[in-house]
Amino acid sequence: MCRWICFKAKAPVLLADLLTRPSHSIINQSFDCRLRLDEVRPLNGDGFGVGWYDPAEPFEPPCVFTSVLPAWNNPNLSRLAAKIKSNLVFCHVRAASSGFPISESNCHPWSYGNLMFQHNGYVAGFNKIKRALQALIPDDIYHHIHGNTDSEWSFGLFLTQLDDPLRTQFVPDELKGALLKTVTILNQLATSAGIDTPSLLNFAVTDGRSIVCTRYTNCSDREAASLYWSSGSKFTCDENNEYQMHKAAKKEDIVIISSEPLTFTKSDWCKIPDNTLFMVTPNVNVLLFPIEDEHWNPKADREPEVPWWTVAGRIRSGTE
Amino acid sequence: MCRWICFKAKAPVLLADLLTRPSHSIINQSFDCRLRLDEVRPLNGDGFGVGWYDPAEPFEPPCVFTSVLPAWNNPNLSRLAAKIKSNLVFCHVRAASSGFPISESNCHPWSYGNLMFQHNGYVAGFNKIKRALQALIPDDIYHHIHGNTDSEWSFGLFLTQLDDPLRTQFVPDELKGALLKTVTILNQLATSAGIDTPSLLNFAVTDGRSIVCTRYTNCSDREAASLYWSSGSKFTCDENNEYQMHKAAKKEDIVIISSEPLTFTKSDWCKIPDNTLFMVTPNVNVLLFPIEDEHWNPKADREPEVPWWTVAGRIRSGTE
Amino acid sequence: MCRWICFKAKAPVLLADLLTRPSHSIINQSFDCRLRLDEVRPLNGDGFGVGWYDPAEPFEPPCVFTSVLPAWNNPNLSRLAAKIKSNLVFCHVRAASSGFPISESNCHPWSYGNLMFQHNGYVAGFNKIKRALQALIPDDIYHHIHGNTDSEWSFGLFLTQLDDPLRTQFVPDELKGALLKTVTILNQLATSAGIDTPSLLNFAVTDGRSIVCTRYTNCSDREAASLYWSSGSKFTCDENNEYQMHKAAKKEDIVIISSEPLTFTKSDWCKIPDNTLFMVTPNVNVLLFPIEDEHWNPKADREPEVPWWTVAGRIRSGTE
Amino acid sequence: MCRWICFKAKAPVLLADLLTRPSHSIINQSFDCRLRLDEVRPLNGDGFGVGWYDPAEPFEPPCVFTSVLPAWNNPNLSRLAAKIKSNLVFCHVRAASSGFPISESNCHPWSYGNLMFQHNGYVAGFNKIKRALQALIPDDIYHHIHGNTDSEWSFGLFLTQLDDPLRTQFVPDELKGALLKTVTILNQLATSAGIDTPSLLNFAVTDGRSIVCTRYTNCSDREAASLYWSSGSKFTCDENNEYQMHKAAKKEDIVIISSEPLTFTKSDWCKIPDNTLFMVTPNVNVLLFPIEDEHWNPKADREPEVPWWTVAGRIRSGTE
Repeated sequence: MCRWICFKAKAPVLLADLLTRPSHSIINQSFDCRLRLDEVRPLNGDGFGVGWYDPAEPFEPPCVFTSVLPAWNNPNLSRLAAKIKSNLVFCHVRAASSGFPISESNCHPWSYGNLMFQHNGYVAGFNKIKRALQALIPDDIYHHIHGNTDSEWSFGLFLTQLDDPLRTQFVPDELKGALLKTVTILNQLATSAGIDTPSLLNFAVTDGRSIVCTRYTNCSDREAASLYWSSGSKFTCDENNEYQMHKAAKKEDIVIISSEPLTFTKSDWCKIPDNTLFMVTPNVNVLLFPIEDEHWNPKADREPEVPWWTVAGRIRSGTE
Repeated sequence: MCRWICFKAKAPVLLADLLTRPSHSIINQSFDCRLRLDEVRPLNGDGFGVGWYDPAEPFEPPCVFTSVLPAWNNPNLSRLAAKIKSNLVFCHVRAASSGFPISESNCHPWSYGNLMFQHNGYVAGFNKIKRALQALIPDDIYHHIHGNTDSEWSFGLFLTQLDDPLRTQFVPDELKGALLKTVTILNQLATSAGIDTPSLLNFAVTDGRSIVCTRYTNCSDREAASLYWSSGSKFTCDENNEYQMHKAAKKEDIVIISSEPLTFTKSDWCKIPDNTLFMVTPNVNVLLFPIEDEHWNPKADREPEVPWWTVAGRIRSGTE
Repeated sequence: MCRWICFKAKAPVLLADLLTRPSHSIINQSFDCRLRLDEVRPLNGDGFGVGWYDPAEPFEPPCVFTSVLPAWNNPNLSRLAAKIKSNLVFCHVRAASSGFPISESNCHPWSYGNLMFQHNGYVAGFNKIKRALQALIPDDIYHHIHGNTDSEWSFGLFLTQLDDPLRTQFVPDELKGALLKTVTILNQLATSAGIDTPSLLNFAVTDGRSIVCTRYTNCSDREAASLYWSSGSKFTCDENNEYQMHKAAKKEDIVIISSEPLTFTKSDWCKIPDNTLFMVTPNVNVLLFPIEDEHWNPKADREPEVPWWTVAGRIRSGTE
Repeated sequence: MCRWICFKAKAPVLLADLLTRPSHSIINQSFDCRLRLDEVRPLNGDGFGVGWYDPAEPFEPPCVFTSVLPAWNNPNLSRLAAKIKSNLVFCHVRAASSGFPISESNCHPWSYGNLMFQHNGYVAGFNKIKRALQALIPDDIYHHIHGNTDSEWSFGLFLTQLDDPLRTQFVPDELKGALLKTVTILNQLATSAGIDTPSLLNFAVTDGRSIVCTRYTNCSDREAASLYWSSGSKFTCDENNEYQMHKAAKKEDIVIISSEPLTFTKSDWCKIPDNTLFMVTPNVNVLLFPIEDEHWNPKADREPEVPWWTVAGRIRSGTE
């Protein structure tokens, strides 16, 4: 399984301050992640990608940089991150699932027109539904897909739910509707194929202005893959190369959604509940929507989560 | 378009003597090829692959080494080629067609069980027939395909024509039959989709003992992509790093099929006629079969070929 | 041998308009260059690099993107070039000299503080002078050098000639002086080591405001590696993906220096004379200085250049 | 810090059985190693290399395959390892030290003639002694070195201690003497340069017949980097993809030296004592020599080692 981060702010940040400098950034998480539910492979070294929108051209497609080399030692990433500023950034580090080769085509995020997409988790039994899924996708999107992962084809399915995926702007509710339909169709395909292992569908999508993402599993008695969010007025990197989320009264200028908390200050991070759609509006407001389908079970005694104090791998006093 | 070579001999050769040392080997052709029909991009630098069978284990699957780095400056290739001997070798250098990304998954040759396959040319209008082609392929082969090129899917179609593609041995006629059916189906798919641009289908396939390949186009008034063959008793590299094919009386121990001649001795190389299937049997005998389908037109006044004396890019006296 | 381009303009240009879109850009030159003096290897596929300064931060270090994959099929380059604007760009495509491995550390341009450097040609007999050259370089620069090419060590030697190479700005004459001293010392080292094969020293250096470069060989009877320049008021890409240099009266807002002409309009390109230092000032003025050292020989009957009309590989009527 | 393994046996083994199939092989250690003294970066994903001798040509140079892609997901490695057999194998996974870039030139093992070398640890303050070390190395070796790591230059220093490093065979004592001199000179250089941080010098060298390696630190009160050895009559991979060392009475046909134990059977693995030279003779006999220099301190109360039962990251009953 992989990890991702979504960042949206009113003011642009330098990618380096978000991705490469902080000691517990997603890049560093790529070789030291603690919250993964699967324990087979304790790192994400099978490529990475970062996508961002140019603050000067908010209605233009994003730029995406991907690499099959690990993120933690990538001179191009270091040099680009030291130069580029953006107020909407996606970043993903990948642990290749069995059967999907490592190639730049398989690195998240992917883009199509102004839309950008990434996924943490997997579509269970994907090979059994792959053909049925592909049959739902129109040619222009079908031929745009160069890789072969469950994640990229899920993006294709998402694009198919939009009237015109090449528009430059979308109402947040459009993205929300298309993403929920994507989840629904994936569930239907799994049922039709008789797949009874659970999928983990933490999707994130943006048009450069809104972000819509899901924390979702179609299994009623297990947790979904972890997903947290935090907001504040400023997000900085202190002298120890650790992040600090600053909170000014009544000002929410930054929202981060991340597979695991990026700071040790527990109170700064909220867990997104299982089976929830999370929306960040163009004005940086946050909305949560429970996904009350047949897998919705708020009272279920799901498996216990990893306790907070092991999140960062060590006990931190003072800030907790 | 790309270039490939097939080599079969009774005695194993060092890969270096075939691939890296000779000045006009396929590796050097990768940046200096003269016979290409398309002139858009005069080199093949978008990855390469070499596959070979272990002489000690002729009924085992081949080993394949691929790289997205250009072949002409690849230390791993140089070091491996200096060590490995084989009597059946495929090698391919790739010029990425528009729309297919560069990735190791897209490098020829591909293998499946004991079978190995490579292609020079392209399936015209591939996007228009891709779904129909995929629908013909059973699941086990379908999910074995990790890339997305016309060439690899043609291999899938070929495998589909065999009763059991995972057998360790095949009668040469089985391979011949399956390859001809592959060509026929590709033609049918093109007709159904209304594609009127010609395909260039120089395929090569082997089970480690026989080689079957085609020089073929479904266009009656143009030549197929170039394809030559040579045979002899010994194939060596002289002091100028140039190949020499030696011919002892009545001994044919080596056959080479190649997109372009590997030596300057014109008499050593025969052009395989257009729309012909070429077979090398396990005993290193050579058979040619015209492919007399609806595109067969032996008398057609096809476009003139590049004259012989420019094949190697310069005039060579004495040996011609 | 390699190829490079230097671009400086009053208004920023999109890197794509300079590097990836035009059919005869340096990226396309990387697989189709016609003016190379050496004919051993007719392409530059052994890595490339592009460096640029952010127009919003002219006194900050440049950003450099390098890759060992060929430039002509590099999705990251395509995506970045479609987004990034700059008014001072260096770009280099590399053909690895014998003995120097392909690695990102060996890709030009290199940077140190605000300075950026690239080289076309080679330092003859470099192995014989390498230790003596290294002995001249102070520790901080010495340990900054991660590759092992003659070119990068020449950059180290250049940096050594500056009082403080980490300053943010330089007077053009300082850069000129340091570059001339670099050439002088390389000549002295060659003489001391008894090297009698000629070096080709087409260096380019910038601090983000001025550009200083040389077309130079220490051989009195052969030409240096080719180098051209052009200037105008606008440099655009027409509907055929070919460049056009536009010339408004008395306005020189753009200067390009390039290993070979980028357009087919002969009158737009001037050859920089052999053994000349070429300077572009912060205000985009151009100055040429003959390098009148012991290798200066303006009257020499040097070997004839490749005729103009083969520069672009075909005859173009009308525009010539 | 990195990890390495040396394998020597009377009968050749398939590389796959040694490197890729076992769940606790060095390749898997590359993303799940437990014994590392430094805890900064818990994985070795910055390239790897494997070198082996052809059993049919024991007096020929080794073949080396290196890659900057992580070892655990490398199709070329998987395919080659499934084919190649050898009775003397070195394998190394790398965690790039700060300051040394990731490139194939920096991947261990390196070879020179018939000799092969790898290193786990680091030469403390290498930048301060680099020039003095280089001055000791003759030109032919100096120019053979393409990377820039402390490890490769230590190899250069080792080669310098041999009368003729290009001979095809060496008496084990020659290799031992040269390796001890290498350690001595590195200590002297450190002393001269006033370096007081300890070096970790776990070197391994072979000529294809003998192996000589060191577990060494020049710090009297800390342990050296971990190093274990095991021997037996057969080394197999069981149905759970775990290694088993088999011990027939009085038969020692296999010796493995490894940065960490490869099996969970504690009694099969001996720790090589600190500051010891370990030798495997051509006949697969094992000899240990304490390195009784000024850093020898057998009674020192060194820092406690990681307890055995955490070696493999979990408690295993039965076999312990």
